[in-house]
Amino acid sequence: AGSASKADEKPSELWLATASSLGQRALSDPAAFDFVRSLTTEIGQRLAGTAAHKRAVAWAEARLKAAGFENVHSEPFTFPAWIRGEEKAEIVAPIPQHLAITALGGSIATDANGIEAEIALFRTYDDLLAAAPGSLAGKIAIVTQRMVRAQDGSGYGAANPIRRSGPSEAAKRGAVAYLLRSLGTDSHRLPHTGALTYKDDAPRIPAASLAVPDAEQLERLAALGPVRIRLVLRPTVEENASSWNVVGELKGNERPDEIVLIGGHLDSWDLGTGATDDGAGTAIAFGAARLIGSLPQRPSRTIRVVLFGAEEMDFSGAAYAQAHQGEIGNIVVAAEADFGAGNVYSVQLPPGAAGSDFGRLLQRVIAPLGANVDSRPALFGGEDIRDLHRAGVPTSSLRQDGLDYFDTHHTADDTLDKIDPKRLEQAVAVWTAFTYLSATSGVDFRSLASTAK
Amino acid sequence: AGSASKADEKPSELWLATASSLGQRALSDPAAFDFVRSLTTEIGQRLAGTAAHKRAVAWAEARLKAAGFENVHSEPFTFPAWIRGEEKAEIVAPIPQHLAITALGGSIATDANGIEAEIALFRTYDDLLAAAPGSLAGKIAIVTQRMVRAQDGSGYGAANPIRRSGPSEAAKRGAVAYLLRSLGTDSHRLPHTGALTYKDDAPRIPAASLAVPDAEQLERLAALGPVRIRLVLRPTVEENASSWNVVGELKGNERPDEIVLIGGHLDSWDLGTGATDDGAGTAIAFGAARLIGSLPQRPSRTIRVVLFGAEEMDFSGAAYAQAHQGEIGNIVVAAEADFGAGNVYSVQLPPGAAGSDFGRLLQRVIAPLGANVDSRPALFGGEDIRDLHRAGVPTSSLRQDGLDYFDTHHTADDTLDKIDPKRLEQAVAVWTAFTYLSATSGVDFRSLASTAK
Ligand SMILES: [Zn+2]
Ligand SMILES: [Zn+2]
Ligand SMILES: [Zn+2]
Ligand SMILES: [Zn+2]
Repeated sequence: AGSASKADEKPSELWLATASSLGQRALSDPAAFDFVRSLTTEIGQRLAGTAAHKRAVAWAEARLKAAGFENVHSEPFTFPAWIRGEEKAEIVAPIPQHLAITALGGSIATDANGIEAEIALFRTYDDLLAAAPGSLAGKIAIVTQRMVRAQDGSGYGAANPIRRSGPSEAAKRGAVAYLLRSLGTDSHRLPHTGALTYKDDAPRIPAASLAVPDAEQLERLAALGPVRIRLVLRPTVEENASSWNVVGELKGNERPDEIVLIGGHLDSWDLGTGATDDGAGTAIAFGAARLIGSLPQRPSRTIRVVLFGAEEMDFSGAAYAQAHQGEIGNIVVAAEADFGAGNVYSVQLPPGAAGSDFGRLLQRVIAPLGANVDSRPALFGGEDIRDLHRAGVPTSSLRQDGLDYFDTHHTADDTLDKIDPKRLEQAVAVWTAFTYLSATSGVDFRSLASTAK
Repeated sequence: AGSASKADEKPSELWLATASSLGQRALSDPAAFDFVRSLTTEIGQRLAGTAAHKRAVAWAEARLKAAGFENVHSEPFTFPAWIRGEEKAEIVAPIPQHLAITALGGSIATDANGIEAEIALFRTYDDLLAAAPGSLAGKIAIVTQRMVRAQDGSGYGAANPIRRSGPSEAAKRGAVAYLLRSLGTDSHRLPHTGALTYKDDAPRIPAASLAVPDAEQLERLAALGPVRIRLVLRPTVEENASSWNVVGELKGNERPDEIVLIGGHLDSWDLGTGATDDGAGTAIAFGAARLIGSLPQRPSRTIRVVLFGAEEMDFSGAAYAQAHQGEIGNIVVAAEADFGAGNVYSVQLPPGAAGSDFGRLLQRVIAPLGANVDSRPALFGGEDIRDLHRAGVPTSSLRQDGLDYFDTHHTADDTLDKIDPKRLEQAVAVWTAFTYLSATSGVDFRSLASTAK
């Protein structure tokens, strides 16, 4: 009775009890794993712009409705869809050997016979950047720089320009095609795809990733003498393709116009079944909101789950932000789960929040789950949240353990068997706590941020 | 001086000292890794019957000569070469999905359009065997039994009939094609090939392996309802292809007609570069003999290194045994290294030898290297040694740690990066000790075996 009356006095103690109880339930709730199992089994790959992605949208709407979400709908947008075609590469000299490669998203095609040329191999990206203009004329430029394994994914961030900007940098120096060692931490014959960004001041050249063992094979061969490669890439682009951001809500019972927005992206690359990228993220957002929806009473604010529709080629975040310009001030916080199926070890909140009552409350809930509130603020909340964030929406980053994430990221190997259900459940538990407290406590991240300045 | 005079009295002490010294040198000798690095880099895949294998034969002869081996030559034989062609599979219903598959060696082809049929999925091989005759009429039979990870490779032996005999067992029951979960311990989208053996009393049907994640995907889908698959396999057979067993020797200085035969197989599957299967084995035999050849004086007996030329489809062992019928009585012992690049943890000798002076001497040399003489006799010395063994040649089995071997065995992932040079060097050290003592000590395994009976 003593503690009950205390809870009556201090709502935060009630929130703490509820959030902790939700977190514990999440640890043995199969809903998130079921979600990603069904998505990857019954839909499989769902590259934005394909019939498979359209099936995924219908699947997701049905799933959200069945789980009791309100206002379930899909918000359409158009974008230029890049669709993989035939792709192959082989060493033609000094001796014929097959190479495991995959086109980068956005790459232009070669003609049907492909490009055959001698290679110019650089062991670091900076070596390529140091090459003189014209020095790569007629060559296939190759960068074999290694990506560093790191729990926080910082190795990917550091290596990202090699894939994003490498094609244009090579083209500026005369190269006719570009290959990079996959941005991945494995050593399997499964190349990692991902989007490139052509620059306006460089010719567009075809670009692909090499599997890690193939990149190492080329390093060894290049050390022995000239190497010639033939590369065939036949992707196509559908200029006005359709996609959708799928939405489901739990309407707030006191301040329904204030929105806690969480999500993941429903589209995936086409090589695997998008289990960890980003079936897991959509499952985490779904699982967390669904648990909160099972409470006898809705939180004060609206919880909105958004399953974005074209993250991999960077279109859905902009489409969402543009469609919801008028709502920016109402979005209390936005966060996207897009870093696999590992456990959350750290939560980065908007500036000023870590040391606030809200931060301390969250810490008390998630410490028993094996996660901490990070003293550093969130600088990035997910690709699909970026434009909302730029427009002024506070963002949070729930950091998942990504030590193994880049072993299979963007490869054919991104399949359900790579997900450990217990680690996924822990991630759902932390997301549940964060989302529930954000929707219930009345925290005002914007004013915490301005106080912090 | 005291121990030196003892060595003079007991030749076994001198052998012990020399074998131990050779073993220590092997632990930092780069020759074996250099061998497999060059083979896999400069030749790559070398499926028997292909131009690449022919290149490998010339490469191996040159390598043996350069290392100082004598009597270097290649012994030709003909065989029906199976050559992989186009191969693909997809789920067509309930929804389209790509499947990662690879044809089994020896499989017949489908026609160019492939076979489309409903699947009948069995979770164990015994479930398939229990199916009634005719019950699989018109179906693609699939067995998804898991292979067990075991250091000694026993999981592969237990599962082998699923690949070897499954196609004919399915055909007997009416199936039009056969798929199995890869015989592998990994969970990557890289299917494991390997040979099948059609039975004479069953129709020949096309057969392929599924990557492990794809087999699990089919299990999940089959639990939801009917599944249809389309399978295209376009291999060809060249009936009178050529291969060669490559030989190099260190002539014995006292009993040159007595032969200690060690080897590996130079051919490989075509998907990877045959680094662990069996570039590593050929490198071990080469590296061990080369070290012994660097001694100031040759051992008493001849050491013969044989790099077999068509192990994967089971032709080179028979060809070798037939060509050397007249030499059976002269071969003191034969052993093949064909279990990857892991360390040797146990040596199985011919019956009666483990407890002999020879066995005790070998134990004293290899115990410091981290290996034991096994009290159990060798029952199998390698696929290419099988026919020699049946004809009466004693055999030994140097057991390598195979815990990870079947992660990449017979896949595109069998590449150089999977070899740990230090573990390979340890294997060379144990092989060096075994080979040196067999060639030097005058051990008579045949008489030990008859005494043991
Ligand atoms: Zn993603
Ligand atoms: Zn992605
Ligand atoms: Zn082998
Ligand atoms: Zn093999």
